[in-house]
Amino acid sequence: MRIRNLKNTQEIVDNSTYLLNNPKEYKGKFNTLFNNNNEIHLEIGMGKGNFIINMAKKYPDINFIGLELHTNVIARALKKLESENIPNLKLININALELNEVFDKEISCIYLNFSDPWPKKRNAKRRLTSEIFLDIYEKIYKNKPLIIQKTDNTSLFESSIISLTNHGYIIEDISLDLHSTDIDNVCTEYEDKFAKQGIKINYLKAIKK
Amino acid sequence: MRIRNLKNTQEIVDNSTYLLNNPKEYKGKFNTLFNNNNEIHLEIGMGKGNFIINMAKKYPDINFIGLELHTNVIARALKKLESENIPNLKLININALELNEVFDKEISCIYLNFSDPWPKKRNAKRRLTSEIFLDIYEKIYKNKPLIIQKTDNTSLFESSIISLTNHGYIIEDISLDLHSTDIDNVCTEYEDKFAKQGIKINYLKAIKK
Repeated sequence: MRIRNLKNTQEIVDNSTYLLNNPKEYKGKFNTLFNNNNEIHLEIGMGKGNFIINMAKKYPDINFIGLELHTNVIARALKKLESENIPNLKLININALELNEVFDKEISCIYLNFSDPWPKKRNAKRRLTSEIFLDIYEKIYKNKPLIIQKTDNTSLFESSIISLTNHGYIIEDISLDLHSTDIDNVCTEYEDKFAKQGIKINYLKAIKK
Repeated sequence: MRIRNLKNTQEIVDNSTYLLNNPKEYKGKFNTLFNNNNEIHLEIGMGKGNFIINMAKKYPDINFIGLELHTNVIARALKKLESENIPNLKLININALELNEVFDKEISCIYLNFSDPWPKKRNAKRRLTSEIFLDIYEKIYKNKPLIIQKTDNTSLFESSIISLTNHGYIIEDISLDLHSTDIDNVCTEYEDKFAKQGIKINYLKAIKK
């Protein structure tokens, strides 16, 4: 995601109570951070944060963690959070390749919303549903692997279905036009924009039994 | 498929050498019918036959069997075949629920092209990718189950992906716009019409390892 830098990015990042500066220190004990034993759901590539912030507000009995690689992007979400008090939400500014250094069998659900499609074949391994990432996710799930994906990108969606089912996932639910269904949905920034343009959103829920 | 009756349906059906009048008598020995040990591929719901006829011409080293429930529809295909000499093609006029009475572990690939979507939930079991049919198909496969599906119907496609992956199939290849890809493809009558109208064709290849 290309995004204009906020002037005071570093100041926002340094001062937010939502951002975990050293998330690895909570490995295996994120329940102590949230001070409960509720499920922990993770969004990888949370962007400007609308989805994860609104999910956390909608489901107070689930703990949410938003991961975003780009500091100038996560700063946008942190800025939105300045006036909020959401105890079941934390953000982390790391590379998804490091996920297994941050979590140890404690994630119940992973959300992948409008991930970078990496359309060129030589970059296929960078897609967040590539075998490399699915192997990493295996190490952080508490119980049965569960991925919920939304994307407007057809090629990413197709390659995700192939990758997931080859990795032992079952497609439990799927829609090629999410907004025409009654599936429970919280929108991302992108999604709001796309929906207004009449672009169809692909959705899937994949589990591994 | 609703279709105008040919005047001489019965005459065509009675006189065609392509139609097997009593297919059950070949159960377990379809190789003797074709007089070779080549793979046998089956299209369920072949309609007026363009797909299976052109596949048989394109791939002479594969034996093809087309199944169609409706006699007045299969008569259309038989009429087309009157001037053809295609030794690797036979048609059967049965209900797909009887497939395991006709074949015994001898089919290598099943094609499902533009199958009836049976959109109402109470009719879901009638879809050709419902659990009932997938269980029947298991009994007729020679080796690994392999289904190749094409449809313009989004709901049927979605329900097929769910049903197939819940039944242990892996989606080996998929496209939400088959005609934009270089996947090897022979068109059905429907497909030609849809493609001209700009309707996108969904495609999947599912295997069970």
